[in-house]
Amino acid sequence: MPSQAHNLARAAIFNKAGEFKDNFEVYDIALGDLPADRILVENMLSSVNPSDMLRSIGIYPVPVSNIDFDVVATTSPEKSNKVNGNIVGLEGVSRVVKIGSNVKGAINGDIAVGDWVIPFDFHSYGSWSTHAVLDPMNTMVIKNTNGLTADDIVSARINGLTGYRMLKDIIELKPGDYIIQNGANSGAGQYIIQFAHLSGYKTINVIRDRGNFEQISSMLRYLGADIIIKDTELESETTKKLISELSGPLKLGFNCIGGKSADNIANLLCHGGTMVTYGAMTFDPITSTAPQYIFNDLRLRGYWMNNYFNNNPSSEWVKSYDAIFDLMRSGKIKSQHNNYIDMFEVNDGRKSLLELEKFKAKLVKAVESKEKVALRFIK
Amino acid sequence: MPSQAHNLARAAIFNKAGEFKDNFEVYDIALGDLPADRILVENMLSSVNPSDMLRSIGIYPVPVSNIDFDVVATTSPEKSNKVNGNIVGLEGVSRVVKIGSNVKGAINGDIAVGDWVIPFDFHSYGSWSTHAVLDPMNTMVIKNTNGLTADDIVSARINGLTGYRMLKDIIELKPGDYIIQNGANSGAGQYIIQFAHLSGYKTINVIRDRGNFEQISSMLRYLGADIIIKDTELESETTKKLISELSGPLKLGFNCIGGKSADNIANLLCHGGTMVTYGAMTFDPITSTAPQYIFNDLRLRGYWMNNYFNNNPSSEWVKSYDAIFDLMRSGKIKSQHNNYIDMFEVNDGRKSLLELEKFKAKLVKAVESKEKVALRFIK
Repeated sequence: MPSQAHNLARAAIFNKAGEFKDNFEVYDIALGDLPADRILVENMLSSVNPSDMLRSIGIYPVPVSNIDFDVVATTSPEKSNKVNGNIVGLEGVSRVVKIGSNVKGAINGDIAVGDWVIPFDFHSYGSWSTHAVLDPMNTMVIKNTNGLTADDIVSARINGLTGYRMLKDIIELKPGDYIIQNGANSGAGQYIIQFAHLSGYKTINVIRDRGNFEQISSMLRYLGADIIIKDTELESETTKKLISELSGPLKLGFNCIGGKSADNIANLLCHGGTMVTYGAMTFDPITSTAPQYIFNDLRLRGYWMNNYFNNNPSSEWVKSYDAIFDLMRSGKIKSQHNNYIDMFEVNDGRKSLLELEKFKAKLVKAVESKEKVALRFIK
Repeated sequence: MPSQAHNLARAAIFNKAGEFKDNFEVYDIALGDLPADRILVENMLSSVNPSDMLRSIGIYPVPVSNIDFDVVATTSPEKSNKVNGNIVGLEGVSRVVKIGSNVKGAINGDIAVGDWVIPFDFHSYGSWSTHAVLDPMNTMVIKNTNGLTADDIVSARINGLTGYRMLKDIIELKPGDYIIQNGANSGAGQYIIQFAHLSGYKTINVIRDRGNFEQISSMLRYLGADIIIKDTELESETTKKLISELSGPLKLGFNCIGGKSADNIANLLCHGGTMVTYGAMTFDPITSTAPQYIFNDLRLRGYWMNNYFNNNPSSEWVKSYDAIFDLMRSGKIKSQHNNYIDMFEVNDGRKSLLELEKFKAKLVKAVESKEKVALRFIK
């Protein structure tokens, strides 16, 4: 396939059921001729999210469209010239390299080679790949990149929007109201702190009692966190006293951990308070009692960004992103802290993509990381 | 106190902490001169509710105003001419026997001797008593008793209103939508079935798999129940298939049981469904998982009639009761089934109140009853 050699992608593809770190292989795939209604992009940055793991083990309820990819080379022991599957990765920011002859534009306007885009459809082509073939009507184009980095955009796609929308979509808050969240140093947690601070809401932030507690506390305070509590102190008398003496009602809780941590947060909310579960660092269930529900008028619910996408026209998504990007441009909101994993090497000033086995090893490292990491394909 | 001998009451008074059946004694109390701003009522029917037990063991969060009552006779081993406490009982229907000289009226209009009233304030004078001294501004008068029995009124006060309001206040329902409830033969459950049926909502009713299953099923079907399921079959494949084939979405669940029963109901709801906890026949906690909250957009909350009273003016309460009573008058709503416990004896055609010890024995029987019972003071 010499004529399409320039349309190659190195991609992680799901090819069997099982634990996340074992159920993908890396393939060099030939992308073939670009269909007239598609665009070819190179991925700049791609997130490594808990949802990737959930999709891998089969409990992330988004449709997956397995397709046949033409294999040029692979890390898979089963050598074959076809692989049926889909590319891993649910979040990324990409740059357009080729445009099909019949492309009309992205969801929010014209599209040109060199534009940065946010892909929304990951059914077949995920973000853990050097390149992807996308339906432009499932991408948003960022025409004005002034003051924005790819890092801003990739983390705004899910975590930024989640933090932004959760403060608007759950309950009405007033300046002076309090919010409590566990996993406060998560990506969404960092955005929640900042958006809350901008709106005059106060945040109580629960983080793990680990060696880097002071360092993470400082980072969160820098973002605007009002109060920081160690997870080990959530049930203490000191915490109960602190909560009882707040200057405003503790109306809203965000839970991305589960189990005892979630139960404790629900217990601290004011009468009529709401706790939102948007993640599950542990898979421990969330437990509350009838008196909490009845007498304290407790409300528990979930939040999933996909529901926002499903229930709102794309013009609304664009408005939300524009609002977030404007706040980033003006410096009012910082993008979340990511540790980057480079998928390329630089030797003698020349950049080259990691070889297949090294590429896979880096992805396994990313999956196993305890820190928030993202993949960098382009320097 | 010969001059006030006619203002005596036989009443169950809380006088020590402990298990419900042991922590009240029966007293004959002298009510003394009626204050100018109060009314004297005789209680006709009084409910025996789970909330009485919750208040007794100290987890029902309503203020209690202990006052000193003048004791004439008592079942208490500690004989004394005063007892400090409050009269048991949070629901009843009463008849006015005397009106203070300075009384202006009830919350909804003029009040006269012989009127039936619903008392709302049970801080000191509860309903487990032959008589009570009430603030008329905490009572609602039923001027038009045409087509109404005391039984209609006593069960409408809490359970009727709970069923009525829960269908209006939680989420918006459309005809054809489905509701599922456990404890469907409870008082509120019976009203939920009827109000739902009137509005065109369909009900799935879970009841215990006991000897009287067929009898209770028939009663619920008579009230308008669409589907009846045994609690032992809630997790079965048959039930899952049944739910998957419903003609409308299963949007709303009502839980008055707790534990596994509640968890199962939450599991059966449609995407975005809401489960409301309004009671706790077991005190087992309610447990849900992050995927239920996030991917199924599950919402859990409580409902407590007291919040409705606290958050709405009494004119709104009156409107709700009038609507319910009109439906009862027209025969569209039947009052819940109660087993009555007579607090009097009839010998040779002459009615007389049960003696102190027998009076207490009947109350203990009422507390221990597994069926829904109410106290009848007046034939």
